[in-house]
Amino acid sequence: MALSAEPDPQQVDHRTLPRRRGEVLYAAIFDATLAELAEVGYARLAMERIAARAHTSKASLYKRWPNRAELVVAALRHQRGEPEPAPDTGSLREDVLTLLRRAAARLDGTFGQAARGLMAETLADPDRTATVRATMFVARNRYLTEILNRAVAREEIPASAIKPHIIGLAPALVDHHFLMHGAPIPEEVLTNIVDDILLPLLTSTQ
Amino acid sequence: MALSAEPDPQQVDHRTLPRRRGEVLYAAIFDATLAELAEVGYARLAMERIAARAHTSKASLYKRWPNRAELVVAALRHQRGEPEPAPDTGSLREDVLTLLRRAAARLDGTFGQAARGLMAETLADPDRTATVRATMFVARNRYLTEILNRAVAREEIPASAIKPHIIGLAPALVDHHFLMHGAPIPEEVLTNIVDDILLPLLTSTQ
Repeated sequence: MALSAEPDPQQVDHRTLPRRRGEVLYAAIFDATLAELAEVGYARLAMERIAARAHTSKASLYKRWPNRAELVVAALRHQRGEPEPAPDTGSLREDVLTLLRRAAARLDGTFGQAARGLMAETLADPDRTATVRATMFVARNRYLTEILNRAVAREEIPASAIKPHIIGLAPALVDHHFLMHGAPIPEEVLTNIVDDILLPLLTSTQ
Repeated sequence: MALSAEPDPQQVDHRTLPRRRGEVLYAAIFDATLAELAEVGYARLAMERIAARAHTSKASLYKRWPNRAELVVAALRHQRGEPEPAPDTGSLREDVLTLLRRAAARLDGTFGQAARGLMAETLADPDRTATVRATMFVARNRYLTEILNRAVAREEIPASAIKPHIIGLAPALVDHHFLMHGAPIPEEVLTNIVDDILLPLLTSTQ
């Protein structure tokens, strides 16, 4: 994404440009969304400015995304592209730590700023919380399940240790730290979650 | 609080009322804040309406509380009055569950609505997150420390089990559930936190 090489959106009349469709237009809109997000933050993010920056109309934005929350979620998903596979280091501890470090690194950037803004917006409108949560946070649970299943296969942990609320535990604690204390999340917080909370629960025989 | 018996705030000119000071005025303002909060929700809470309802001026509100977040925190603290002592049932499990049930019950009411609104507002303005967190969430950690110390004294758990991130664990998970899924928090979520996460960590010898 060469966002800084874009011409000044104020000086371009999008109606004079050749008509773009599908992938190309979407990519321009997503790039503009993320560039605006990085420049002005979520609270001041405006559909109007995004449209201008992407050389399109506000109406064509609203036609596809009813509000900025959904546009931001779509832009972040697009930026992410094909997600990295779940870590597979051969060690449960390293796999989980790698996953949490990735999550912490993403939260300490544009994604984190967007996540904070989206949480703020959806908390004020609780009915939408579920959608955003599903989009933003579910991938980590899927990765953790994969990591834990491999640890069971290696006989590092018993299969009985895998319960839904144990799978979601470490990501929930990372999210909570981010929401309460912001980013960056110190490495010590991540190792405490893994060494003092998750691993003892997974390895203790009950 | 007999809030519904208040006269219509629109029809009262507070300048014609006898001057109220200190406790009495504060109580009127806090009652008005909580009544407005219950009626219109945090997102639409307005200092102007609170002032009218408490028969005082907006200026005298702003003199004491620079924004609605701080006024709401003060009102909730006032409503709470002298906090109940920490549960002391003679059993670690019952003490913790009682504490979490209390937290869940508060989150499923005006306090929860305010907590959600305050989180939304402070997430958009991260510098203020710390203050609100300190005010709203610290009491539970103090209670948990008390409960855990008594369990150590009864030799239910080893003293070495008490670490800061273990003390904060159960409240963090309750908060996280509330923020992601809203209220009411099902009893099963609370018993899972206690029986599958907190107690195994506290009782396993490491």
